[in-house]
Amino acid sequence: MENDSRDGAPPGRSERARTATLEAALALAAELPYPQVTIEAIAARAGVGKATIYRRWPHRGALMVDAVAHRNDRAATAGGAVPDTGDLAADLAVVLRSVVDELARPEWDALLRALCVEALVDTATRARVLDLVVAPQIALFAERFATARSAGRIDDAVGDTEAFELVVAPVFHRWQLRTGPLDHAYADAVARRACRAMAP
Amino acid sequence: MENDSRDGAPPGRSERARTATLEAALALAAELPYPQVTIEAIAARAGVGKATIYRRWPHRGALMVDAVAHRNDRAATAGGAVPDTGDLAADLAVVLRSVVDELARPEWDALLRALCVEALVDTATRARVLDLVVAPQIALFAERFATARSAGRIDDAVGDTEAFELVVAPVFHRWQLRTGPLDHAYADAVARRACRAMAP
Repeated sequence: MENDSRDGAPPGRSERARTATLEAALALAAELPYPQVTIEAIAARAGVGKATIYRRWPHRGALMVDAVAHRNDRAATAGGAVPDTGDLAADLAVVLRSVVDELARPEWDALLRALCVEALVDTATRARVLDLVVAPQIALFAERFATARSAGRIDDAVGDTEAFELVVAPVFHRWQLRTGPLDHAYADAVARRACRAMAP
Repeated sequence: MENDSRDGAPPGRSERARTATLEAALALAAELPYPQVTIEAIAARAGVGKATIYRRWPHRGALMVDAVAHRNDRAATAGGAVPDTGDLAADLAVVLRSVVDELARPEWDALLRALCVEALVDTATRARVLDLVVAPQIALFAERFATARSAGRIDDAVGDTEAFELVVAPVFHRWQLRTGPLDHAYADAVARRACRAMAP
């Protein structure tokens, strides 16, 4: 990722503009129907020129991916790791409950819908979502999976991505299609079922 | 669903226009980038007036949902049921392999992406996708789940929707985000893991 502030030096002008743009994109995606979240609107909110935005991001999709990655970086700094109490199902349930809580917030729901739309209509954006949003999430889970694998709770044949999908995909599917209630009971059930699924 | 042809009578003019519109929408979604699949283009291809289309469908999203449901109806007539050999994992693998094969066809991939976009941007369309596309799929699986439940292979606590999600959601997630190869090996692994997940 681009970063103008190294070695703890105060962020430069370019970095400040980047952060302002990402925060403006996040705020607007939470406030407006997505078609109204234009580069123009983001530039106005961020107090930067449209040209400044286009120099860094070729289109809105690329910008939104960075905005979500930026938000997730902050969340991870605030403690995004999967807990490790020794009880895999309980630990995964904690994470899935917080995912469910996040998805219940209209602004985060709107932002993720926007991200999925961008990933669905453009292959390059999808690759960017995978690199900047999904892969870091898989990495967070991978640490916990490694411990569980050592403890004989995960089949060696189940890789980190496959295990991640067993845990997260049912929630993603239910969020996107609203096949049923997306609540803590569902989070707990999915965590429990995923553990059975990936067991040796 | 609307149906002008009852009791085996030949389809009326309105029903012929409906079918022509749905087939045109399917064909164009397979051929063109989705933004170019306009009501105007669909009307031209179907040989019907735009007004005729708008009388039946308020917007493109509603029409696309019916088009996909129409396509699935035909597929189900051609034998869309889940096989029942007594081996649940093997039977689910057969279905998931065919899902994977379908998703590898560019025209079906494009159509489903379009459908997901429509469902993501509009709540009413999402509800329509659930009713006309997802619910019939769950119903196809539910017959097989009922047999498996009688045979003690599925926990009574796992409802049809939850079981469906355990089977289908990982494939849906991988298709949408391309987290890894979407092939027969993955289909088989997901079928096997889903069976363990839903076991009593």
